[in-house]
Amino acid sequence: MENVELFFFCNVCERKSPEEILSRACTIPHTVKSYKKGEHVAYQGDRVDFLYMLAKGKVKSEVVSDPGITLQIDEISAPHPLAAIFLFSRNNHFPVDVIALEDSEIILITKDSIEKQMAKCPYFLRGFMAFTSDRALFLSERLKIFSLKGIKTKVAFYLFRRAKGDEFELGQSITSLAKFFRVDRSSLSRAISGMVHDGIIEFKEGKGKIIDRNALKNMF
Amino acid sequence: MENVELFFFCNVCERKSPEEILSRACTIPHTVKSYKKGEHVAYQGDRVDFLYMLAKGKVKSEVVSDPGITLQIDEISAPHPLAAIFLFSRNNHFPVDVIALEDSEIILITKDSIEKQMAKCPYFLRGFMAFTSDRALFLSERLKIFSLKGIKTKVAFYLFRRAKGDEFELGQSITSLAKFFRVDRSSLSRAISGMVHDGIIEFKEGKGKIIDRNALKNMF
Repeated sequence: MENVELFFFCNVCERKSPEEILSRACTIPHTVKSYKKGEHVAYQGDRVDFLYMLAKGKVKSEVVSDPGITLQIDEISAPHPLAAIFLFSRNNHFPVDVIALEDSEIILITKDSIEKQMAKCPYFLRGFMAFTSDRALFLSERLKIFSLKGIKTKVAFYLFRRAKGDEFELGQSITSLAKFFRVDRSSLSRAISGMVHDGIIEFKEGKGKIIDRNALKNMF
Repeated sequence: MENVELFFFCNVCERKSPEEILSRACTIPHTVKSYKKGEHVAYQGDRVDFLYMLAKGKVKSEVVSDPGITLQIDEISAPHPLAAIFLFSRNNHFPVDVIALEDSEIILITKDSIEKQMAKCPYFLRGFMAFTSDRALFLSERLKIFSLKGIKTKVAFYLFRRAKGDEFELGQSITSLAKFFRVDRSSLSRAISGMVHDGIIEFKEGKGKIIDRNALKNMF
């Protein structure tokens, strides 16, 4: 019943039960590796020769410079692929250290096996491409937010991009949005309250409405 | 002899002559559209349902907010795909306006045809994945550079990442690197000269050497 995580990318299999998946007799060659809490899964600069699918546990990725200053930390919980978007890159190296935060299990699949599975299963191909594409879109949006100065400007642009018509959903908690913007949680809350106070938006429990579209657009 | 651009992603075909490519009888269904100088190829928010391969000419992409303030401009010259990394995204919309800077020609290939070509030709699959992966890596590196404060810090991190052993190549001109960092060209030159003066690096004509690795790492 294990290794359902192999089908993480397949949008046909993701809706099926483990029993149904087994009955499809669709397997991907792989090996499984275990890591103790605190152990390195990969060092910055290591080649990404496999798809690393975190099947159990939790890891963190970090860039550490010499005096022990950590530049960036991300936590990733199973099931989730690691460095998947870099697998096919012509410069396929881990850009970060990856360290187990709990006892973890990682499924390793060779690039070759991934390619064969893509040619065999259009759903897997589409799922893998969608994952990579979504991640690239996320990076590209984050880059735009970063390039804007001031929290209000960032919020305005973010809401403008997310809105469908005049309605929007924040899409994540204030805490994780603050991390995304790399600003204080309290400053972010203040910026949103300010925009509500100024009659630019309505906002309640993660959802809202653009009231004054021109004022919002004039902010970025 | 036209439409060699269809094989942009195929690392077997990219080394062949147009005649050889034709003789392979490997075709991808497509349509061709022409755009006059100044015409919109796509508006921000348009769905990316096709691979847009710019086959002739030049376009710019820009985000424009209400009072006519342009946030970001990129220029793209043929042959080059447009918005290719977003084609498979679950949110596959153009994040920018795309406008022809010259009379241009664009080859449109459906997502379905791309998928079929991927299943048929492992070289095309690998090439397309490499393109997407490289682009994601570029975005991710740029994001890291952005999150660092100060030009010297950015330069130090950039060089540290690019170095193979102690040797490094800048990989692009000072002018384009300054754009990449979003800083002044002259400030960037000064920052590099400063690091040479302080004995941290050697640098001449786009190539250099790390002299004091610890000092470099202490900068970010």
